[in-house]
Amino acid sequence: MEALRRMILEKGKGIGNDIVKVDMFLNHRIDTNLLFQMGEAWAEEFRAEKPEMVLTVEASGIAMAVAAAHALGDIPVVFAKKSATMVQNEDVVQAPVYSFTHKTQNMIRIERQYLPEGSRVLIIDDFLADGQAARGLINLCWQQGAIVVGVGIAVEKGFQPGGKALRESGIHLKSLAVVDGIQDGNIVLRPEED
Amino acid sequence: MEALRRMILEKGKGIGNDIVKVDMFLNHRIDTNLLFQMGEAWAEEFRAEKPEMVLTVEASGIAMAVAAAHALGDIPVVFAKKSATMVQNEDVVQAPVYSFTHKTQNMIRIERQYLPEGSRVLIIDDFLADGQAARGLINLCWQQGAIVVGVGIAVEKGFQPGGKALRESGIHLKSLAVVDGIQDGNIVLRPEED
Repeated sequence: MEALRRMILEKGKGIGNDIVKVDMFLNHRIDTNLLFQMGEAWAEEFRAEKPEMVLTVEASGIAMAVAAAHALGDIPVVFAKKSATMVQNEDVVQAPVYSFTHKTQNMIRIERQYLPEGSRVLIIDDFLADGQAARGLINLCWQQGAIVVGVGIAVEKGFQPGGKALRESGIHLKSLAVVDGIQDGNIVLRPEED
Repeated sequence: MEALRRMILEKGKGIGNDIVKVDMFLNHRIDTNLLFQMGEAWAEEFRAEKPEMVLTVEASGIAMAVAAAHALGDIPVVFAKKSATMVQNEDVVQAPVYSFTHKTQNMIRIERQYLPEGSRVLIIDDFLADGQAARGLINLCWQQGAIVVGVGIAVEKGFQPGGKALRESGIHLKSLAVVDGIQDGNIVLRPEED
């Protein structure tokens, strides 16, 4: 997506070999204008799959999920909550998410009633690297018998295995920008498809 | 705000004496249609104050901040991050937030560069009870020399002291719904102002 790619190249920062810092427009300060253009781009990609709700995980996925849901006709958003431990409660469904960055495992959870069996779910998140968060969200859907119609990502780290693994498993994945690497502090983007 | 009030009465749940559960449409599952109506209501209230950015705190404030920022012409959103401890970093500004519910003190923080001196800031959050979160956000603005043009809240607990204290300190506060109490599991709303 051209507007996001331009913003990444203009304002994003590459740190070390693998850190892509985009918090000046995406996940700390949010460029609201860009955000709603991103929502339109995901809606265009996934509208034909007839999603009935958008699922994400707190905190930085929420703004993007809201923008996508708005562009899809104001369908509901549900965001999974994070906690360090399992919650003992039959009303919630939980999945583990391992963080390679922090070397910790967290749980994500939602109340079962907000993810009904058979519902058509679009998953949205800001980053895709190892794919742990996306897989945790897909896991919640499977446990509930909900249908994952697609996964929309803002920034995919193409040099990490999450995107490839999701595509190979047959998931309809759309990343609005794919970072192929960082060279001398500069972010290298993969040329846009089509 | 009529649409929010109706939703609270229809779908909200009162638990015990003071818990207002609205997570089926506001802060776990989000009714996106209602959300953007709420954004319009805040924009109408605060447009004349010419806010240049919206400030909130993760996680459940983010969706509402995005809706308000959209209605105000897609001005930027900045969300403060929470942590259990102070971060040692000159580039961030921090404030303590005490939680009466959890009996714990957390820190909230933002990168200084995203809250410039002199900027006109609208603070948005989902709940106002004791007012600790709102005061923490105001504190961040004061430390940075930013101007708080108003505070927009979705649900104010009118039986707790936060709203009264903010109004008495001269802050322009707009709560879209005010809960006066819970009686036999039913949420009692304060009659709407005009």
